[in-house]
Amino acid sequence: MTEHELVRELAEKNGSKIVMIVADGLGGLPLEPCGMTELETANTPNLDAMARRGTSGLSVPVLPGITPGSGPGHLGLFGYDPLVFKIGRGALEATGIGFELGPNDVAARGNFCTLDPAGLISDRRAGRIPSEESFKVVEKLAAVKIAGVETFVRPVKEHRFVVVFRGQGLDGAVADTDPQATGVAPLDPVAVTPAAQRTAEVAKEFVRQSQAILASQPKANGMVLRGFAAKPHLPSYEQLYGLRAAAIAVYPMYKGLAQLVGMTLVGKAQSLDEQIDALAQCWHDYDFFFLHFKYTDSTGEDGAFDQKVKRIEELDRAMPRIEALKPDVLIVTGDHSTPSRLKSHSWHPVPTLLVADTCRPDGLEKFSESDCLRGGFGQFPAKHLMLLAMAHALRFGKYGA
Amino acid sequence: MTEHELVRELAEKNGSKIVMIVADGLGGLPLEPCGMTELETANTPNLDAMARRGTSGLSVPVLPGITPGSGPGHLGLFGYDPLVFKIGRGALEATGIGFELGPNDVAARGNFCTLDPAGLISDRRAGRIPSEESFKVVEKLAAVKIAGVETFVRPVKEHRFVVVFRGQGLDGAVADTDPQATGVAPLDPVAVTPAAQRTAEVAKEFVRQSQAILASQPKANGMVLRGFAAKPHLPSYEQLYGLRAAAIAVYPMYKGLAQLVGMTLVGKAQSLDEQIDALAQCWHDYDFFFLHFKYTDSTGEDGAFDQKVKRIEELDRAMPRIEALKPDVLIVTGDHSTPSRLKSHSWHPVPTLLVADTCRPDGLEKFSESDCLRGGFGQFPAKHLMLLAMAHALRFGKYGA
Repeated sequence: MTEHELVRELAEKNGSKIVMIVADGLGGLPLEPCGMTELETANTPNLDAMARRGTSGLSVPVLPGITPGSGPGHLGLFGYDPLVFKIGRGALEATGIGFELGPNDVAARGNFCTLDPAGLISDRRAGRIPSEESFKVVEKLAAVKIAGVETFVRPVKEHRFVVVFRGQGLDGAVADTDPQATGVAPLDPVAVTPAAQRTAEVAKEFVRQSQAILASQPKANGMVLRGFAAKPHLPSYEQLYGLRAAAIAVYPMYKGLAQLVGMTLVGKAQSLDEQIDALAQCWHDYDFFFLHFKYTDSTGEDGAFDQKVKRIEELDRAMPRIEALKPDVLIVTGDHSTPSRLKSHSWHPVPTLLVADTCRPDGLEKFSESDCLRGGFGQFPAKHLMLLAMAHALRFGKYGA
Repeated sequence: MTEHELVRELAEKNGSKIVMIVADGLGGLPLEPCGMTELETANTPNLDAMARRGTSGLSVPVLPGITPGSGPGHLGLFGYDPLVFKIGRGALEATGIGFELGPNDVAARGNFCTLDPAGLISDRRAGRIPSEESFKVVEKLAAVKIAGVETFVRPVKEHRFVVVFRGQGLDGAVADTDPQATGVAPLDPVAVTPAAQRTAEVAKEFVRQSQAILASQPKANGMVLRGFAAKPHLPSYEQLYGLRAAAIAVYPMYKGLAQLVGMTLVGKAQSLDEQIDALAQCWHDYDFFFLHFKYTDSTGEDGAFDQKVKRIEELDRAMPRIEALKPDVLIVTGDHSTPSRLKSHSWHPVPTLLVADTCRPDGLEKFSESDCLRGGFGQFPAKHLMLLAMAHALRFGKYGA
């Protein structure tokens, strides 16, 4: 029996409300040996009070030592084993710019490149043309027409764009066309499996028409395509858990990830306060609320220890408003660690806190990495967090008689 | 996606150096209830200082409650799930006496036995003939000649020996010939699968010629063969991790295990000091260094608590010389526990310490079983130690975008 089969068998409905606050990149490291992490440095009276009432632990996003990107990091928190459920690169890129993929879509990442008169790549990034310029080039590609297929081209940044093909019988098993070298021509799109034959032909026709349109461009007169992928098949929150789920996020990537598991995007918040406004407004319409807080990650990526501390304190100050809604289960966690010292995502386990009337207290006085190490959940795979959420909301029946 | 597929996908190269010191049988038990283990009794100022800077934990060699032999114990530490990757008995015995198996080899363990005039086994161990005597008998078997196959016979101890058949198309799936009883004849070698038909015939011919040669021996005039096995198929350290790996071990078994995963044997050290000399000498030629220290196990096997304490202190005194090489990741662990009180390997989790600049500190002041229990790695499967080693050496890329 897989974990998802178990979940479907045991999930029950009640009137409970579950809030999961994902502070992106929450976990950290001290700047100096034996020093304190960002979370340990921050003044967090509200989170500490929650730690006294709740149960804490350290979540391991994928496996010990494995650093996840945002995709696998969130899939784990949502209860989808990130080694089993994978989001192809093209699908993730489309998701990241807020393009909602449908069931008949195949997405690929595109790079504009410069071709010499012989059709060989002379610059793999088209001189990293500015985004404004690239956006105009992308607009021209709306003229591409392929029989039986709808084509969407969307700019990302500089030379990068996304293309989505929508039509019956498309398949993501198409090889990259990027030869990863200059002085050679882009590769033709080639099907890796017979099912992707038509998609490869569609992609080839797209490239042919595009290059005709771009022939006069000084820099972006060619393209390579990578990471062809359909929308991943993920059972929805409703199917798995019987939860009506809402997502309250500011950035497209996290909105997109939430949509992939069937969450409904709620509100148009731009700040944490506005996110909590949105939470309050839709409180009676949903059972589960995913609230994404980006800035603990971005400050970590910038190596801005003090700024990350301030962002954690901002999150802490928001807790009373959320608690005032009286969620049955309130979770604070992260999708991975982003220590300011490393200026990047890392593999270190993520401080995680769950507050519910059904918690077994673990004697902790604070919410921090070193406290969570002694917490009641111990160290656990992130994919098990939703099991704990459902259990503490009394939404699981008994397994076996 | 399997863990090894993940490792191959994420492994990156950099100039970092990883040292893994395996103190064989490191974990122990107190002699009396509420007493201290060997490691807790030992005076280990250097290891304790490392524990303050690094991250500790308890590694579980196979599964809770499972006591491993040296083979599975080391495979786990090297990152090969010991329930998936198995070393057949014959292959392990050959490895243990320093016989380097090739890809066309099948090895079996042999026992000399005494046959009565009717050809029935009267003594299953040939009166446990002394090793000196047995070695001479083994030498006579060099006269065996089998068409298309090279045969190697090597003494082990007393009545035990190893035979290796080398040739095209050999296969380890041959049943034991030991009837595990006296008063009956040894069984004929029988193929368990069609692919092993030729190997069974080769083994039968080997036994036939051997018994002719040994007919005049007073005790060792017969033999039984067990544990037929080819060299296991293990991806190498280079293939898996992209690591050039060196092994610095004194005993043949550990040299052999290291060779099975593609490590290069370095030096001819006989003492710990000489092992560290060898480490220093080859420092620039490798990325990963496996250093095996035998005596924490052998003193445990002898039930010599105080001697094991002294051996742990000897290891502690060696730390500064190793740290002076400035490894990026320095690990001290064991392949299993060998409590003096049990005079044998045991299943108890193994104290493990990893020191790197990228460690999240866990507040420990000492290196011991009871401290490791509160360590930052918690209790973890030994097969995940290499994931942590690679991560802390910044040798893994990010999983997913």
